[in-house]
Amino acid sequence: MQEYRILIDSHDEKGLVYKVSSVLFKYDLNILTNNEFVDKVNNKFFMRSVVQGDFDPDVLLAELVEALPKDAVIDVIAPRKKNIVLMATKELHALGDILIRYESGELDANILGVISNYDSLEPLVSKFNIPFIHVSHEGLDRADHESKIIEALSEYKEIDYIVLAKYMRILTPRFVETYKSKIINIHHSFLPAFIGANPYKQAYDRGVKIIGATSHFVNDNLDEGPIIAQEVIHVDHAYGWRDMQRSGRDVEKVVLSRALKLALEDRIFVYANKTVIF
Amino acid sequence: MQEYRILIDSHDEKGLVYKVSSVLFKYDLNILTNNEFVDKVNNKFFMRSVVQGDFDPDVLLAELVEALPKDAVIDVIAPRKKNIVLMATKELHALGDILIRYESGELDANILGVISNYDSLEPLVSKFNIPFIHVSHEGLDRADHESKIIEALSEYKEIDYIVLAKYMRILTPRFVETYKSKIINIHHSFLPAFIGANPYKQAYDRGVKIIGATSHFVNDNLDEGPIIAQEVIHVDHAYGWRDMQRSGRDVEKVVLSRALKLALEDRIFVYANKTVIF
Amino acid sequence: MQEYRILIDSHDEKGLVYKVSSVLFKYDLNILTNNEFVDKVNNKFFMRSVVQGDFDPDVLLAELVEALPKDAVIDVIAPRKKNIVLMATKELHALGDILIRYESGELDANILGVISNYDSLEPLVSKFNIPFIHVSHEGLDRADHESKIIEALSEYKEIDYIVLAKYMRILTPRFVETYKSKIINIHHSFLPAFIGANPYKQAYDRGVKIIGATSHFVNDNLDEGPIIAQEVIHVDHAYGWRDMQRSGRDVEKVVLSRALKLALEDRIFVYANKTVIF
Amino acid sequence: MQEYRILIDSHDEKGLVYKVSSVLFKYDLNILTNNEFVDKVNNKFFMRSVVQGDFDPDVLLAELVEALPKDAVIDVIAPRKKNIVLMATKELHALGDILIRYESGELDANILGVISNYDSLEPLVSKFNIPFIHVSHEGLDRADHESKIIEALSEYKEIDYIVLAKYMRILTPRFVETYKSKIINIHHSFLPAFIGANPYKQAYDRGVKIIGATSHFVNDNLDEGPIIAQEVIHVDHAYGWRDMQRSGRDVEKVVLSRALKLALEDRIFVYANKTVIF
Repeated sequence: MQEYRILIDSHDEKGLVYKVSSVLFKYDLNILTNNEFVDKVNNKFFMRSVVQGDFDPDVLLAELVEALPKDAVIDVIAPRKKNIVLMATKELHALGDILIRYESGELDANILGVISNYDSLEPLVSKFNIPFIHVSHEGLDRADHESKIIEALSEYKEIDYIVLAKYMRILTPRFVETYKSKIINIHHSFLPAFIGANPYKQAYDRGVKIIGATSHFVNDNLDEGPIIAQEVIHVDHAYGWRDMQRSGRDVEKVVLSRALKLALEDRIFVYANKTVIF
Repeated sequence: MQEYRILIDSHDEKGLVYKVSSVLFKYDLNILTNNEFVDKVNNKFFMRSVVQGDFDPDVLLAELVEALPKDAVIDVIAPRKKNIVLMATKELHALGDILIRYESGELDANILGVISNYDSLEPLVSKFNIPFIHVSHEGLDRADHESKIIEALSEYKEIDYIVLAKYMRILTPRFVETYKSKIINIHHSFLPAFIGANPYKQAYDRGVKIIGATSHFVNDNLDEGPIIAQEVIHVDHAYGWRDMQRSGRDVEKVVLSRALKLALEDRIFVYANKTVIF
Repeated sequence: MQEYRILIDSHDEKGLVYKVSSVLFKYDLNILTNNEFVDKVNNKFFMRSVVQGDFDPDVLLAELVEALPKDAVIDVIAPRKKNIVLMATKELHALGDILIRYESGELDANILGVISNYDSLEPLVSKFNIPFIHVSHEGLDRADHESKIIEALSEYKEIDYIVLAKYMRILTPRFVETYKSKIINIHHSFLPAFIGANPYKQAYDRGVKIIGATSHFVNDNLDEGPIIAQEVIHVDHAYGWRDMQRSGRDVEKVVLSRALKLALEDRIFVYANKTVIF
Repeated sequence: MQEYRILIDSHDEKGLVYKVSSVLFKYDLNILTNNEFVDKVNNKFFMRSVVQGDFDPDVLLAELVEALPKDAVIDVIAPRKKNIVLMATKELHALGDILIRYESGELDANILGVISNYDSLEPLVSKFNIPFIHVSHEGLDRADHESKIIEALSEYKEIDYIVLAKYMRILTPRFVETYKSKIINIHHSFLPAFIGANPYKQAYDRGVKIIGATSHFVNDNLDEGPIIAQEVIHVDHAYGWRDMQRSGRDVEKVVLSRALKLALEDRIFVYANKTVIF
């Protein structure tokens, strides 16, 4: 029996669960997990079911489309390895964490390649037999550099997610638009605190007692996209900002990998610049 | 429109969500929240729905009973203030935390009384106009002391929960049986570490770097009942066991109050000596 | 033997520990705890020693002043109950937490009184036999209202700390100046995120996955004073902003009480808008 | 100017800080950090100072030995890359985390080699140009297998630490004795909860709401050595034991690497089966 993930994003109205479960019951499906969330403020309904059965997913989808509101976004997805491209700059902790998971077989993804504006990560990436594409930004303005990156990305037919594993350059709206809702970033602060450059320095200057990291989808406004996952650690007065940075890296990498896992398992819905996570 | 909580605890089989939602749809109910959990290992199904509508709950219940498996345990509950009795010994932090919540109106419960084997908490309890019943254990064996407590408790017609807010005496199986699944305890360790007496001293002796507290239902085996909530804090070598105790109290009171809130909102299912919490 | 706390705040230079310990050795003191911190960036030295011995603290102080740099700030403090005034508005969780600690004897302070701009907390405060001063802000501009509060405060000869236990009005620079480094606030967010009004609403709108609370000394700029303590809890998409508020209260009260305890034990040094905490 | 770490482990008596700081002052040393801890219960004194200066460390050591109690254990250590050997079985998350840190230059150590009782980690280890030694346990009794490992280890002249990065076999007292206080293990539970085999399965069966990991020095009794670091994460009823295992790995690797870092920086003192960590 095949396993499928059914995703439903709809406005809320009475009877949605009934209508969905009627279809699932008709097809004699085995429900493994079932999550729903109703946002009464925004009148939204979200549902994720993992089901097992012997059926044609296209037929099931058609029947769900028939049963549910016209504006509902419905997916019936067979789990498969998703295609991801990693982007990084110089730091290797977040990238390395993903590579080790990849090596272990835990990452449900194909890493198509790693793009960096420096070449210093090439030795690491090459160890894992993953293409490394060096797209230097030197001597180029932002638009030209990004064009080259987009060109490199266009080599890949199907990209499910672009993971910014400490890619330290700002993306233009054009780039973000091209890969809408597909770019996952890790920001090295507990957003919305310390937006922008060197958040550990900012945190140090402010004298905070906790630092954190935030993984989010990238939208047009820097560090303001929908948040997927956050984590923090305690610090004290004895931490200089480089100590914060060093300790913070352990949080960054774990949070980014956690967010990526949620994305790969189709557990994230985005709306109103927020995420619903099942 | 009245709000109701629908609770279903059943063996798992196909179509349960469909059957429940059919009934809810028929009665034109508005679903506020909907949680389900399927335990494939134990073949169990749990569901909690909060619904609004204009209907006779007894009729709804009858229809759900009709629709669902014979062994399903089903409840349709109108939210109401539950009746609780607190038991304590000498420490007042956990008891005080509940009293303050009571005073604030945040606690969805009537406190029928506070029973203690010492009289030292009487001044605090009296401030809140709550009956204080002193049942000294001095000169009594465990059975006799407990008989007196059961006698005191029997004054109250309906007790939903007995909350052991740092009641430091062991309850007999007879007592536990009498108030089966109704006794909520706070144990001052991260169970199952440090079962038994003076867990902070045990934690200090073992040199742990984290201490915690556990709220659980009481069953026949000391500190082995189903866990409802746990929380921890970091400590270091500079903490003596009394420092651990002092810091731990903040965890204890918050964890106990959190567990109590879950119980008052009918969010806890118990099975296989564990809890499912929605 | 009396116990004393020795506090030293100085610019850093070689030999400071030697000079201090020479004096302590000369007086044959028993050192219970000893903490030092050197901030190389700002060239600062901080030290807190708890000592036992049989000596005249004024003589010891004089000798330390003699031994250490001219600009060093030195204190030799006999532990005593500090005098505090609480200020609150309507919420009672943070105030209640302090009152319960007071009742338990755990709070090393005398509560001189509670000042509020509403009278709704009077019943709670009165239970604990603490003076409640209602200073309504209605019909008054900020300056006039604050004058009345300052008048009420001036009744007390010696105030060590003013604790804002969810006092929801902004203090003027005049007030802050009058009680410089003596006002401890709890802000219901993880500062510097969500400065200003209704941080839980802001957090909800931003879709964060963690919320927090921050206790800090109050300076002229709202929510920008030196941070003493911070704590967080995880939330998810199912939390409305009122759920965040409810859950957040448990963090607020614990963080405020923790900060107050640090202050009462003379564990906090302030410099560069930050705290050093031993 | 060279940097040195001065470590002192002594019984406690008056004047120790004075005596140490006299020596440091005499040599005109610059103190970067200074940590002391007095354990009044066990009458113990610990101190770690990081100093800079222009001096002969042997002379300084001799002078400290002269000044301090006869039973004091004193070290004056020039920071250097320590020599470590990793041992693992099949899981690669903890090992991989250390290798990535090694590659980043963040790990202040030389990895002499990786020993495993399986060969499945060889491809990963080889990527990093680190010797991989496969010592199969198949067909051997415990003593014989361990003899082969000790033989492999004896190839290395100087081993500072042996890091058990999920090495899933029990070490004999002989082995532990040979590398006394040099073996750092990661146990995949919040010790002392769930000692022994498959702690995640134990945690699942017990229905805990928090799981954790513990790094500790290995002594003769399985999972009972001095604890260096612990961390936890929250879980709920929806976690099967394999979900706990998967999530727990992120804790395990971070805790082990944190403990290793503390060891490499000479920040750990061991006594009474506990650690003092500066």
